[in-house]
Amino acid sequence: MAENRPIRFGILGCADIARKVSRAITLAPNATIAAIGSRSADKAKRFAVENRYDDSVTIYSSYEAVLDDETVDAVYVPLPTSLHVRWAVMAAKKKKHILLEKPVALNVVELDQILAACEANGVQFMDATMWMHHPRTNKMRETLLDPRFGEIKSIHTIFTFSADPDFLENDIRVKPDLDALGGLGDTGWYCTRAILWAVDYELPKSVTALRGAVFNNSGVILACGASFLWEDGKVATFHCGFLANLSMDVTVIGKNGTLHLNDFVIPFTEKYASFSLAMESGFTELVTGWLPIPSQHVVTTELPQEALMVKEFSRLASSEVDKKWATISRKTQLVIDAVKASIDKGFEPIEVVA
Amino acid sequence: MAENRPIRFGILGCADIARKVSRAITLAPNATIAAIGSRSADKAKRFAVENRYDDSVTIYSSYEAVLDDETVDAVYVPLPTSLHVRWAVMAAKKKKHILLEKPVALNVVELDQILAACEANGVQFMDATMWMHHPRTNKMRETLLDPRFGEIKSIHTIFTFSADPDFLENDIRVKPDLDALGGLGDTGWYCTRAILWAVDYELPKSVTALRGAVFNNSGVILACGASFLWEDGKVATFHCGFLANLSMDVTVIGKNGTLHLNDFVIPFTEKYASFSLAMESGFTELVTGWLPIPSQHVVTTELPQEALMVKEFSRLASSEVDKKWATISRKTQLVIDAVKASIDKGFEPIEVVA
Repeated sequence: MAENRPIRFGILGCADIARKVSRAITLAPNATIAAIGSRSADKAKRFAVENRYDDSVTIYSSYEAVLDDETVDAVYVPLPTSLHVRWAVMAAKKKKHILLEKPVALNVVELDQILAACEANGVQFMDATMWMHHPRTNKMRETLLDPRFGEIKSIHTIFTFSADPDFLENDIRVKPDLDALGGLGDTGWYCTRAILWAVDYELPKSVTALRGAVFNNSGVILACGASFLWEDGKVATFHCGFLANLSMDVTVIGKNGTLHLNDFVIPFTEKYASFSLAMESGFTELVTGWLPIPSQHVVTTELPQEALMVKEFSRLASSEVDKKWATISRKTQLVIDAVKASIDKGFEPIEVVA
Repeated sequence: MAENRPIRFGILGCADIARKVSRAITLAPNATIAAIGSRSADKAKRFAVENRYDDSVTIYSSYEAVLDDETVDAVYVPLPTSLHVRWAVMAAKKKKHILLEKPVALNVVELDQILAACEANGVQFMDATMWMHHPRTNKMRETLLDPRFGEIKSIHTIFTFSADPDFLENDIRVKPDLDALGGLGDTGWYCTRAILWAVDYELPKSVTALRGAVFNNSGVILACGASFLWEDGKVATFHCGFLANLSMDVTVIGKNGTLHLNDFVIPFTEKYASFSLAMESGFTELVTGWLPIPSQHVVTTELPQEALMVKEFSRLASSEVDKKWATISRKTQLVIDAVKASIDKGFEPIEVVA
C-alpha cells in the first residue's frame, strides 16, 4: 500500500481521547488525518474545528463512510469497547489498518474475530497503548535485560484515578452495555500490560483477583486488583480503578535490581521522563543507610509518546504486516479475561491458557 | 524508677543488630549501656571491644545475670524469636523494661504472655521497629490526616532484600526452631506495620495470602505476599522476602492524594529522608502530562531513627507505663498470624479477630 507517503488516518468517533491522538497524527512525520466520522455531522464538524483540522480532512456523518473512503489507509478506533468487533472487523474487510483503543475487546473470543479479520485482509493491527512507545520504555527494557539486574522476581503495578461524580454516572467506562470491563478494562489494561511487558510477555500460569473489588449498581467494576503467578515462581500484583487519586506505578524487582516509576501511563511531563534504578543495593556499615543509593535516569523525547505510537503504527502500515502487537494485545486480553473470571468466581485462582 | 537520669540498658546477646542499637543507646541523650550478656563471655567481651563500650559496662556470661543486675533498668532483646517468651517474661518479672526485637513473638498467644508479664510487673514494652520513630513518619501522618488527601483507599508495601547463600543456609531467620516466621516475621513485619500505621491501626476484617509463597526445605517462608480488606472497602497488599533486591516501598493512595516512599524501613541516608506527595493530581490539557506534578518532601533528623526509638523508649521507661506500643505490636502480630494461617490453609481468606 502506502510507500514513502504518510499514512492517511480516518478517525471513528469524536471521543475525548481522539483529540490527543489527532494531535499525535499531526505530529507524526509519516501520518496525516484524512477523515473523521461521527453519527452526528455537527459533532464531527465541531470536533474538526476545535482540533484545527485542515480543510482537506473529510467529515462524514457515519463510520461506514470513513471506511468506504479509498483515500483512508488506516483507522483509529476510540469507540466504546462493545462496538470494537463490529467496526474493527468491518474496517479490516475494507482493508484499513487498525489502531484500536484499549481494551481492544470485551474478551479474547471477540478479539480473535478482530485479529482473524486483520490477518485475512492483510492489515496491520496495534492497540493504542501509548506508553509502550516512549523511549523510556526501551531504556527500561535494557535495564531489565542487564545481567546485573538478575532474574525478575516480582512486579507490582498501580493505575488509579479519582473519577468525578459525572464520570461515575455517565462515562462509557461505567456502562455495562458500552465498556463492560469498567475499571479493569481501562486502568487494569495498563497494569496488566506493564506486568506482561516486564516479563517479556511470558503468560502467568494463574491469576487470582484480590478480594475487595468494587462494583457500581450495574455490576461494572470500578476498582479491583489481582495477583499473578508464573511457572518459575515469579509473582505480580496490580491495583486499579476509578476511585483513588491519580497513581501510575510500576515496580519491578529482580534478584539484584529494582526499577521504579510513578508515571508509567502518562509521563509527568511531555519532553522527558524518568525512572529510578537500584542495582545490587546494600547497606552502609551498621545498616544506617543504603549503599549504593538508587539513581534517577532521565530519558528525553522529541515527540510525545502518542506521536511515536502513531509513527510506529504508520511505519508498520507501510511495510509487511507485523503480528507482534496482535500477539501482545491478545496476551493482555487473555489475562484481563482471567482476572474477570476470577472476580466472577469469587476470587478463585484461574489458570491462564494461551 | 529512673527519674531524671539515663535509662541503663542491658543487652541480651550479641546479635548483629545489637551493634546498631548499641550505638543508638549511646547517641540517645537519656540512655546508657550498663551491661551485656552472652552465653559466651568471650563473645560478649569481643562485642564490647568492637563496639567501643565504656569500661563501666558489665559483661556477663549469661542472660540471667543481666536480668539479676539491679543497675539495669531496661533490656534490649535481639534474641531469636523462639526465645522471646522465655526471656521477655523473665525480664518483666525482674522489673526490666523491654525493648523487644521484631517479630515480637511466634504468635499472638506467646505475645500475650509477654504483655501480661509486662503489665503485671509495671514495665514498659516497645517493639524495636525503628522507622516508627523517624520524624518523617510523623510528617507523613500529618499528610495522611490532611483533609485534602481524602479517605484512604489502598496501601501497598514491599520489603525485600537479596540474602546471600550463607544467610539462606545459616541465618536464624531461616531456621524453623529459631525464627519460624522466616521472611514473614522479618520483612513482612515491617510491611504489615506500615499498612496498619497508614490506617491508624484499624485492623482489616480479613487477610488473604497471595499464591506464590516460597519456602525453604524446612518449610520456613522465604518470600510471600498478602492482601488485606477492611470493613469500609479499603484494601492493601504487601510483598516481602529474602529473595529479591533491597526494596522498601510504601504507597498510600487516598481519594485525592498519593504518598510514596522507597526507603521506609531504613532511610537512604541517616541525616534526612524524603517522601513524595501527589495531591489532587490531574492532567494538563489533552492529557499530555500531570498537573500538578508530585512534590518531594525532605525531613531532616539530628538523631538517627534508632536513637530516637531508644530515646522515646527511655522516656516512657522513666514515666508511667504507656500501653500504646503493646497495642500496636499486638495488632501487627495478629495480622501476621492471619497471613500465616492463610498460607497454611492454601491461601484462603482469614478473618482477623481482635
